[in-house]
Amino acid sequence: MDEIALPTLIIDEEICRRNIRNMAAKATHSKIFFRPHFKTHQSLEIGRWFRDAGVTRIAVSSFSMANYFAKDGWNDIMVAFPVNTRELPLINDLSSKINLSILIADADVLDTLEQNLTHLTDFYIKLDVGNNRSGFDPENLDALTALLEKAGRNLMLEFRGFVAHAGHAYQTQSLNDVHKIYKTGTEQLSNVKLHFEKQYPNIISSWGDTPTCSLVNEFHDSDEIRPGNFVFYDLTQFHLASCDWEHIGVAVAAPVVSRQKDRNEIVLYAGAVHLSKDFVKVPDAGKVYGEIVKLTPDGWLRYNEPIYVTRISQEHGIFYCPDEFWDDFPQGSLAGIIPVHSCLAADLLRHNRFYNLKTGTFME
Amino acid sequence: MDEIALPTLIIDEEICRRNIRNMAAKATHSKIFFRPHFKTHQSLEIGRWFRDAGVTRIAVSSFSMANYFAKDGWNDIMVAFPVNTRELPLINDLSSKINLSILIADADVLDTLEQNLTHLTDFYIKLDVGNNRSGFDPENLDALTALLEKAGRNLMLEFRGFVAHAGHAYQTQSLNDVHKIYKTGTEQLSNVKLHFEKQYPNIISSWGDTPTCSLVNEFHDSDEIRPGNFVFYDLTQFHLASCDWEHIGVAVAAPVVSRQKDRNEIVLYAGAVHLSKDFVKVPDAGKVYGEIVKLTPDGWLRYNEPIYVTRISQEHGIFYCPDEFWDDFPQGSLAGIIPVHSCLAADLLRHNRFYNLKTGTFME
Repeated sequence: MDEIALPTLIIDEEICRRNIRNMAAKATHSKIFFRPHFKTHQSLEIGRWFRDAGVTRIAVSSFSMANYFAKDGWNDIMVAFPVNTRELPLINDLSSKINLSILIADADVLDTLEQNLTHLTDFYIKLDVGNNRSGFDPENLDALTALLEKAGRNLMLEFRGFVAHAGHAYQTQSLNDVHKIYKTGTEQLSNVKLHFEKQYPNIISSWGDTPTCSLVNEFHDSDEIRPGNFVFYDLTQFHLASCDWEHIGVAVAAPVVSRQKDRNEIVLYAGAVHLSKDFVKVPDAGKVYGEIVKLTPDGWLRYNEPIYVTRISQEHGIFYCPDEFWDDFPQGSLAGIIPVHSCLAADLLRHNRFYNLKTGTFME
Repeated sequence: MDEIALPTLIIDEEICRRNIRNMAAKATHSKIFFRPHFKTHQSLEIGRWFRDAGVTRIAVSSFSMANYFAKDGWNDIMVAFPVNTRELPLINDLSSKINLSILIADADVLDTLEQNLTHLTDFYIKLDVGNNRSGFDPENLDALTALLEKAGRNLMLEFRGFVAHAGHAYQTQSLNDVHKIYKTGTEQLSNVKLHFEKQYPNIISSWGDTPTCSLVNEFHDSDEIRPGNFVFYDLTQFHLASCDWEHIGVAVAAPVVSRQKDRNEIVLYAGAVHLSKDFVKVPDAGKVYGEIVKLTPDGWLRYNEPIYVTRISQEHGIFYCPDEFWDDFPQGSLAGIIPVHSCLAADLLRHNRFYNLKTGTFME
């Protein structure tokens, strides 16, 4: 890792490929589609690891991300975010080349789409199954019927089904709560699909989020899953118990820039512009911005007594280092940080390029 | 603003230029140097607005940022972050071309610098005046003397002075506290400089941070100021009372992607990957991630009863919109958001390019 000079996301390819294979196998076992969300990694090379595991359909969170992956040969891409009609030129360009799906969360987009879509575009309807972020009430079948009637008059729109995302699964305190969210949410999703499939026989239901998809072994009541974070996992998922420690596939390598022995504090070159300000609350430590690990040529080692990044500013991250581990972090060395939220850390660090531990090279 | 399709930082050039001129005038009035911190904007074009105001010396937070501005003709650049010795090849390259200053916050870097610096490089010593982040205790003159003796044996290092940054001024609750931090911190800085200037007659003392530099009208006890955020200001500075509303020079234009009339909520395409998750606590509203404004061709208008972004996820920002303003935000329109922390928003949004309100064009 001598070549690493800047805060860098280091990737354990073996762990990530195993996470991909495990989730793909669960989907196959339940005979449902697997449409992983690529916003977590935003990497062409990691995308190819999914392809190696048989993945052909993906989700992304923006049209520019769809465009990026379309150029690498992906041709079934859902933009799993309420359609931004200000991007219609790009939407039309993508629809002319690949099988693009958009998300409708608000009936008011239909007029704009009617007037501007130039190519056949698949759409899914976003249902709100308790996250209260966006989408239609699954109980309000009248609103859904009206939406579908109006959309049906647009020859450029092809109805494909319903999607839901259990963002509220991230806020839970227990595994039991995660299972409840899964059960209630997928039942709502399934009921809506059953109601409409007489009229639209080929529609599917699509279900998202890493916590429920990680904890559930058999998927009922949805025809597709769209988790994203599971390829890397992170400290949030670990503390939610969505994953074990050995499933975490990324760490941030952070240069040690200053050590204050008088208060046993070490300052890392890794701050909010590298890790984000996302935190997780940890017993006995409160809000933490990452867990410190010892980097080795093969990966990283956890300390028996966890060490956390407890303060963060724009470029600085600070941790308390007990005497016995002081020599693990000499000035100018690299410390490892398991990020709180790997999606945000990867988004911030992709401009520095990711480092593949296995090949010992920076990734394209 | 029809061309704006993505979350975009929009810049009021008049306001920013006025902020620059005002700070430059205050420095001139106090007969001290003005070394603005460019990490806030990271823009060549905005850098030139500083040049128009007579600025010749700048601070940045990384060597890559120094390199970026060096290519635009800046040749007196301080990297105001504890020197990261893993970047020595770039440091040497920069030192061979421009007047580069580095920051020493830890004596342990000296051996590495001794062995690897190939060109004369200016250095400043970082003092910790109460922020407890990094740097030397200003009371510990023995440690400073030892550091300077060791550094003096390195023919590639040229001692230039002391720097301090009052990061703790951001955590204050009252203007009185900000003034106290300024007084105590600059006195400590000044005392250290006075102690060493007999031996090093040309050294200076350099003082940072936007809150104190904004609130103080006459600068005593420092020879230079290094504020950064003041060029844009933001909601945090407004609530700290470092600036008035009309000094805020940026807003984020965010596409309206979904509206939930049943609960008067509007979902914007502007989330943690655009605004960061930084928040400010506001009376009666709690934690907020931005304040909603109405965009106009000339700028933005504040609502009499402030409207805040109160929930944020990776790409979504959500606000409660009272009935009377519902029609200000039709589906597909742009809402304005005054960001909580303009440095982080600018860092995240610079890849989408900034939009200059005055010229009606995207900036390079």
